[in-house]
Order: sequence, then structure tokens, then C-alpha cells
Amino acid sequence: MKVVRTIADLETAPATGLVPTMGALHDGHRALFRAARAENDRVVASLFVNPAQFDQQADLAAYPRDEARDLELAEAEGVDVVFAPDELYPPGFATWVVPEETGAEGEARPGHFRGVATVCLKLFNIVRPERAYFGQKDAQQVGVIRRLVRDLNVPVEIRVVPTVRDPDGLALSSRNRRLSPEERERALGLPRALASAVGQPDPVAAARASLNGLEPDYVEVLDLGDAKVLAAAVRVGATRLIDNVPLEGEIR
Amino acid sequence: MKVVRTIADLETAPATGLVPTMGALHDGHRALFRAARAENDRVVASLFVNPAQFDQQADLAAYPRDEARDLELAEAEGVDVVFAPDELYPPGFATWVVPEETGAEGEARPGHFRGVATVCLKLFNIVRPERAYFGQKDAQQVGVIRRLVRDLNVPVEIRVVPTVRDPDGLALSSRNRRLSPEERERALGLPRALASAVGQPDPVAAARASLNGLEPDYVEVLDLGDAKVLAAAVRVGATRLIDNVPLEGEIR
Repeated sequence: MKVVRTIADLETAPATGLVPTMGALHDGHRALFRAARAENDRVVASLFVNPAQFDQQADLAAYPRDEARDLELAEAEGVDVVFAPDELYPPGFATWVVPEETGAEGEARPGHFRGVATVCLKLFNIVRPERAYFGQKDAQQVGVIRRLVRDLNVPVEIRVVPTVRDPDGLALSSRNRRLSPEERERALGLPRALASAVGQPDPVAAARASLNGLEPDYVEVLDLGDAKVLAAAVRVGATRLIDNVPLEGEIR
Repeated sequence: MKVVRTIADLETAPATGLVPTMGALHDGHRALFRAARAENDRVVASLFVNPAQFDQQADLAAYPRDEARDLELAEAEGVDVVFAPDELYPPGFATWVVPEETGAEGEARPGHFRGVATVCLKLFNIVRPERAYFGQKDAQQVGVIRRLVRDLNVPVEIRVVPTVRDPDGLALSSRNRRLSPEERERALGLPRALASAVGQPDPVAAARASLNGLEPDYVEVLDLGDAKVLAAAVRVGATRLIDNVPLEGEIR
């Protein structure tokens, strides 16, 4: 496995699959690497904690980083190239990709999806993959990136990989490691509330009613075109968690 | 020469030069086609009056269109493919490329450079040229597009072709045909004022002082990185004209 630190050193090649990550890799990323490995001759994982997508500076500072472990995990999953640049924004950077209609997640985190859309377009242009892989857990992100690709005619296929959960049902997230054992127990209210709401006549109300004391940032039905999901964000202590479950259709 | 009307029908190829145009082709475009012809195996001209870059609906409605003539001119200059789509914005379009710092021209035309940047990125992704050609006349546009390419890592080389002028000095523009003979005479005050200001200690003040009664939207020195130009916009009757002259360096 090759580790590349600058854009100039990164080569492009046909039949490349890209998995964009912010590091702190877990089994959710593993699932992305495997999906990419199965469908492409060459797998590139990017590893860049993108400052532009953090609406809270404290969240950026607290974001977990462990590159040595990340590289091991990527290598074990057959990643060919890890692209881990120090910086992606040149001095005087002044061109943003701005998605409109980013749903409740976008409203809760002003500027977040502008940062996500901008860095993803940059990575698509740098790596020039045939396919790029995203987790269903970040459903609104999937919606934003798919629309970006369609609206701006980006020559990449967006592939969505189902959410990976711990045995207790909590969706994997790099932020989970910030939870105390007591917080983690409370956090389970989120996947349980979402799961119990599927099939109810008003899934938003049903999820809200069973959040077991968790205060939601939002609960909403998100239309991703080929599928609808029930999505929510909650705060557990200082940690913000998001999750979603499919309601109709299938995300591909 | 092939005329292609849909994205699906447009093929990509290596060593392609793209000349983005809004039609109403004149000798300024001819210079762009010739530059592209000299440097590329294949020349694609796009012909699309981009609604997103018109800040005034009346200006969009009045924009001259004469496709039959445009196709003849493109063919005569050895263009291989004219890409003339009816529409480039799908229903539900909601992803914009937003350049910050667009100078006085951007301030005078809110949303204009967002439209320019968005359609150019779309065309780069659709045509996938190795080089794209822009006229120096639209100096702020050159600045915006160059920064877009750098900031978003777009794999295209931006080439800038010197402004083409009529023998009397007026920079060619599709909008010139809207000028009455009397207006055209007055419009010559713009290139004359700019030319006379080159080499003056305060070129902005010098140009302003010699505009011969024309009311400028702005006169400013624009830093394009490798060069500085003195740029101005004036209104002559209902027509808005822009022009610029090099002060230092060379735009490539």
C-alpha cells in the first residue's frame, strides 16, 4: 500500500474506486473499502480531516486522529493507495461548492454541507475515480453528493453502502468513542426509536415519542430519490449523533 | 463538423480544446477557435446562452442569437464539434459553484460569476478538455475561472487570448451590435480612456478623468496573478460594455 501526501504525487488510473474518509476508521469504513475492493481494479482511500465541514471549532479539535492505526486497517482491507494530504485549501482559496436544500441536518450545521461538497468535488477531481463510496449512515450527505454529481455533471458513480451497527444497534461513528459507558447506553435510544417507527402511520411522531428522554435536533423523512429514510440527530452529553433507517425503496 | 445537442451524445477524447461561448460569434471568438485549433487535436465549441449568469432578465431576453451563422463561423475555423444543448440545468438543480472575491464586476452584477463558474465547471466535466480558452476582454471572468480551476483541482489548463478590437479600438463584444452609430461613437471613450491611463501614476484616476462624459460602473486595477489590468465598465444607452488593458505582466 502506498501512502501519498501531496496532490502532485498522486497518480490517476482507470477503474479506480475512491473512499473519502476523515480517518478514525472503523468497521463502517471497512465495509466501504470492501465494497470498493470488489468493484474496482484500484482502491484509493483519502484520509483528510476537512476543516471546512466543521461548523464547530471544538468539534474539529476533538475529532479523533490515529493515522498509524488507520493505515493498518486500510492495508488489511486491500486499499492500494492512501491519499493523506496535509492541506487541501491553497492560500487565497475562494471557490465553494454550495448545495441548496440540505434538509434538517444542513439547517442544524450551517456551512457543513458546503464544506462536504467542496472537499468531495476536489477529491473527485484529484483522484478521478470511476466510483466513490459513501455510507448510508450519512444519508443527507449521500443526498447532497448525488445531487452535486448530477447537477455539476461529475463523471463518477456514487455507491452507497448500508450502515454498519454494533451488536447493540448503535450505528458506527468515529464520534462513538467519545461516549462514556452511561452515555452509550442512553445513545441506544436513537436506533431503537428509529427502528420502532418504521411502518408506523406517522414515523416522525412515532420516533419522537420513543426517544426515551433524548432531545432530538430533528427527526425527519428524507427523500433520496430512489428511497426514503427516517433520519434523526440527537445530542448525548457533548456528542452529537445521527442515524437513519430506510422507510421505502432501496438506496444503491 | 458535428453538432451535438445532448450531453449523452457528446463524446470525450484526449487532447481536446474547449471554447465555451454564448453564441453570437464574432472575431474575438474566431481568435479563441484559432488558438484552440493550433494547440489541440480536437476543438469543441460550446454554444449555450447560460441563463444563470444573467443578473438582468431583460439582458438575457435581448442577448443576440443566430445559430445558423454561428455554426458557419465555427465550421470555417475548423471547430470539430459544436456542443449546443437546449438545457444544462436539470429540474431540481440545487448545486452552485460560488466564487468569492469577484471584484467590481462581481459587485455590479450579483450572481453573475456564480452562474459563470457553475456553467464552466459543468462544461469542463461534460467535455473534459485538456485546455479551455477564454478572452482577455472578460478579465474578471479569467480571474474567477483560473481560481476555480486551482481551488477545485479541475484537470484543465486555462488559456487566455488577447482582446480583439475593431480598427477604431472598440473591443469586440456580442453586445456591440445593440449600439446605434451615435452610441458606438460615444463607446469609443472607454478604450481610449483605458489606453490613455496606461503608464500614469494613478491609472484609475487617469481613466476616470478621460472618460469623456461616459458614466463608469467602476474603474479598477485587477490583479490576475501573473498580470495586472486596468478594467472598467460603462453604460452607453441601454448597453453595458466592459474593457480592460494590461498594466503589468502578461496574461497567458
